[in-house]
Amino acid sequence: MMSGIGHANPLTAYGLDELRRRRSAKWREYPPDVLPVWVAEMDTPLAPPIVDALAAAVARGDTGYASPGALPEAFAGFAARRFGWRPDPESVRLVPDVMSGIVEILGNITEPGDQVVINTPAYPPYFHWLPKIGRRIAASPLALTAGGHRLDLSDLERCFAGGAAAFLLCSPHNPTGLVFTEQELLAVAELADRYGVRVITDEIHGPLVYPGATFVPFATLDATAAERSITVTSASKAWNLAGLKAAVAVFGPGAQADLGALDEEISAAAGLLGVIAAEAAFTAGEPWLDDLLTGLDANRRLLGELLSEHLPEAGYQPPQATYLAWLDLRALGLGEDPAAWFLRKGGVALYSGPHFGPEGAGHARFNFATTPTLLTEAVQRMAAALHS
Amino acid sequence: MMSGIGHANPLTAYGLDELRRRRSAKWREYPPDVLPVWVAEMDTPLAPPIVDALAAAVARGDTGYASPGALPEAFAGFAARRFGWRPDPESVRLVPDVMSGIVEILGNITEPGDQVVINTPAYPPYFHWLPKIGRRIAASPLALTAGGHRLDLSDLERCFAGGAAAFLLCSPHNPTGLVFTEQELLAVAELADRYGVRVITDEIHGPLVYPGATFVPFATLDATAAERSITVTSASKAWNLAGLKAAVAVFGPGAQADLGALDEEISAAAGLLGVIAAEAAFTAGEPWLDDLLTGLDANRRLLGELLSEHLPEAGYQPPQATYLAWLDLRALGLGEDPAAWFLRKGGVALYSGPHFGPEGAGHARFNFATTPTLLTEAVQRMAAALHS
Ligand SMILES: Cc1ncc(COP(=O)(O)O)c(C=O)c1O
Ligand SMILES: Cc1ncc(COP(=O)(O)O)c(C=O)c1O
Repeated sequence: MMSGIGHANPLTAYGLDELRRRRSAKWREYPPDVLPVWVAEMDTPLAPPIVDALAAAVARGDTGYASPGALPEAFAGFAARRFGWRPDPESVRLVPDVMSGIVEILGNITEPGDQVVINTPAYPPYFHWLPKIGRRIAASPLALTAGGHRLDLSDLERCFAGGAAAFLLCSPHNPTGLVFTEQELLAVAELADRYGVRVITDEIHGPLVYPGATFVPFATLDATAAERSITVTSASKAWNLAGLKAAVAVFGPGAQADLGALDEEISAAAGLLGVIAAEAAFTAGEPWLDDLLTGLDANRRLLGELLSEHLPEAGYQPPQATYLAWLDLRALGLGEDPAAWFLRKGGVALYSGPHFGPEGAGHARFNFATTPTLLTEAVQRMAAALHS
Repeated sequence: MMSGIGHANPLTAYGLDELRRRRSAKWREYPPDVLPVWVAEMDTPLAPPIVDALAAAVARGDTGYASPGALPEAFAGFAARRFGWRPDPESVRLVPDVMSGIVEILGNITEPGDQVVINTPAYPPYFHWLPKIGRRIAASPLALTAGGHRLDLSDLERCFAGGAAAFLLCSPHNPTGLVFTEQELLAVAELADRYGVRVITDEIHGPLVYPGATFVPFATLDATAAERSITVTSASKAWNLAGLKAAVAVFGPGAQADLGALDEEISAAAGLLGVIAAEAAFTAGEPWLDDLLTGLDANRRLLGELLSEHLPEAGYQPPQATYLAWLDLRALGLGEDPAAWFLRKGGVALYSGPHFGPEGAGHARFNFATTPTLLTEAVQRMAAALHS
C-alpha cells in the first residue's frame, strides 16, 4: 500500500469478528457481549511500513534485547517535518513507555515528598504512579468555559507559588482533547521560570491533532523553562503500538545533566519490536497517519451527531486532538460513575470518569477509534439502555 | 515444521551476514568487526509456533495493551509436563520481565534497608537494581571445588543468621550454569525456615538444562519455605524473546497475600507480543526446545574442545544448564577484566567478569548460543590475539 493510492480509512478495515480475536486488553477485559470503547487502543490494522518492519524482524529472529538503533534520528526527523521541532538525536533516549519514562525522570528531577502539578481531569495512571514514588500530586483543574475546557493559568500559578517542584504537562490533553496554544504555553513557561518549577511534558497525543488546531511542542518555545524541559512521547497512540513497549524521552539543552542521570538499564527494559515499529512509524508512517486522522475526524463528527440524536443530554465537546471523547453525563442522573451503569445495563465499556480525578464524577471517556459501525452501535446501546 | 520432522539444529540456520542485520543489543552494541558473545541472546531463528503466533497478531493489528490471556495456563502446562510442577494458574501473574518482577516483589516482601542474599558471582543487574530500591546485598559466594562451583550452605547460613530478609536464588545459576540438586534445595529451604528468610527464585534458565542434570523448581519442594516462595521466570531465555517483554511470577500457596499486594499496573507494562509469543512457546515450543538443547549440548562440548586446543590456560567447566560459559582466565595474566582485553585485541565481545561481583576478577562470560562456525571463530580470535 503506497501513500497517495487508495487513501483507505484504517478505521473501516476490520469487522467485529476480527476484532474479537484480538488478545489485547481492550478486547479481553470484558466478556464478548460487551462493546469496548474504554482503553486507548485503536481498532485499525497496522500501518504497512510497520507490518513490513515487524515481519522482517520476525524472519530474522530479531527478538533479543532492545537497542535504540536509529529511533532517535527517526523521531527527530518526524518532529522536524511535522512540528518544526528539531531535537538533537543525541538528546533523545529510549524508555519502555511514556509512563515509566515519566516516573523515572520525575524520580531524578524531584525529591520524595515534592509536589508535582497535573491538570485535572487527568490520565488515571498519574494518580497511581506519582504517589507510588513518593511524590505528592498538586491538582490544578482545567477551567470549564462555555467553549469547553481551558488551561487555568491563575490556578496553575497558585500551585506553582504553593511550592510545586515540577509540572507534568499533558499536551495535548487526555481526556479533554485540548490543544494548548503557543500563547498559553508561553504563559506556562513564564510561570515555571518565575517559580523555578521544572516542566516535564507528556506529548504522546501530539501526532493526533485535527485540522483547526496546531500542536506546539513545549520544547520549541523561546523560554528557559522550555530549554530545561523534558518531553516524553511515543508512536504508541498514533500508530497503536502500546503493547510493543518503546517510547522516547527528549532532554532540552538545559536538561543535559538530567539526561546524564537517566538510568541506562531503563533502555534495556524497552521492547525491541517496539523500537523497530516506532522507527518505521516515524520514518514512513505519515501517509497512514494522515489517512487515520481523516477517519478519526469523521468519527469525532459522527459521535457528535449520534449523541445529538440518541443521547442529547450528554455533554460533548469534540476534541481538538486524540480519539478520546470526554463525555459529561451528569444530566443523565446516573450518579458518580455512569460508565459502571452503561457496562451493566448497556453492555458498553466506557472508561470511568472518577478514575480521572474528582472532576470526573458523572463523566466517562469514550474511545472513538473504532469503525463507524461499532461507534454507532455503542451509542445506540447506551441510548437503548437509558430509554428502556 | 512439525516435531519429529527434520530435527534441524536451530543454531546452524543463520550466517554472519544475516545476524549482522539484527537490531538487537547483542548485534548493535559493538562495531561490525567485533564478534559478539556477550549478552544472553541466541543466534537462532524463532520457533515455528512463535513465528506463526506473531504473524497472526501482526495481521490482526493486535498490538495494544497486554492482557495475560491464557499465558498462566500455558505456563502451568509446560511446568507440569517438563518439571512435574503444577502451579495453580490463578497464582501465575504477568510481569514485564524477570528483573522488574523481582524488583517489584522484593519491594513488597522486604523493607528498605533489608538485606537480600544472592550467590556470587551473580547476574549483573542484581547489583544495580537491589541498591536502587534501597535493599542491601548480602553476597554469599558459591564454593569453588575441584568439580566446579557448589552451593556453600554454611556461608548461606552465615548470611541468613546475619539477619537477611530474603534470598534471591538464581536456579539454575547464571553465570556458572550450576543446577542445584533437590537435596541442596531442601537444605536451603530448611535454613530459610529456620531463620525466617523469604525465598524468591529466578528460574529463567530452568528450561535450559542438559542431560545429566535435573532441574527441580524450588516451589515443588516439601517445605514451608517452598510454599511461601515466589518464582519468577520467562520464556525469554529458552526461546530468545527478551525484547518482547513478558514474564511470569508464580506465588506459592503460602504467598497469596503477596500475590494480592502485587501492583496490577505492572501487568499493563508487559508487552502483548511477548505474552502471545510466550504462550506459543510454552504450549507448542517443546519440540524446538529439544532440538535447541541438542545443538547447545554439542556447542558446550565444542567450546571445551576449542579451548583445550587453542586456549588451554582457560578454566572451563561445561555448564549443566544455560548457554553461558563462565571462563576462568586468571592464568592468562590479562588482569581484572580479560573481556576488555579480548575486545581491544581480539575483536571478540565477552561479558566482563567483574560485573558479576568480586569473584568475577580475571573471569569472563562466553555465550555459546551461536553457530558452531562463529563459536570456533570467536575462540580462534581470542587465541590469535593472545599468541600474537
Ligand atoms: C496522556 C497519556 N500518557 C501516557 C499514556 C500511556 O503511554 P504508555 O503506554 O507509553 O505508557 C497514555 C495512554 O493512553 C496517555 O493518554
Ligand atoms: C538469571 C537471569 N535473570 C534474569 C534475566 C533477565 O531476564 P529479563 O530480561 O526477563 O529481565 C537473565 C538474562 O539473561 C538472567 O540470566
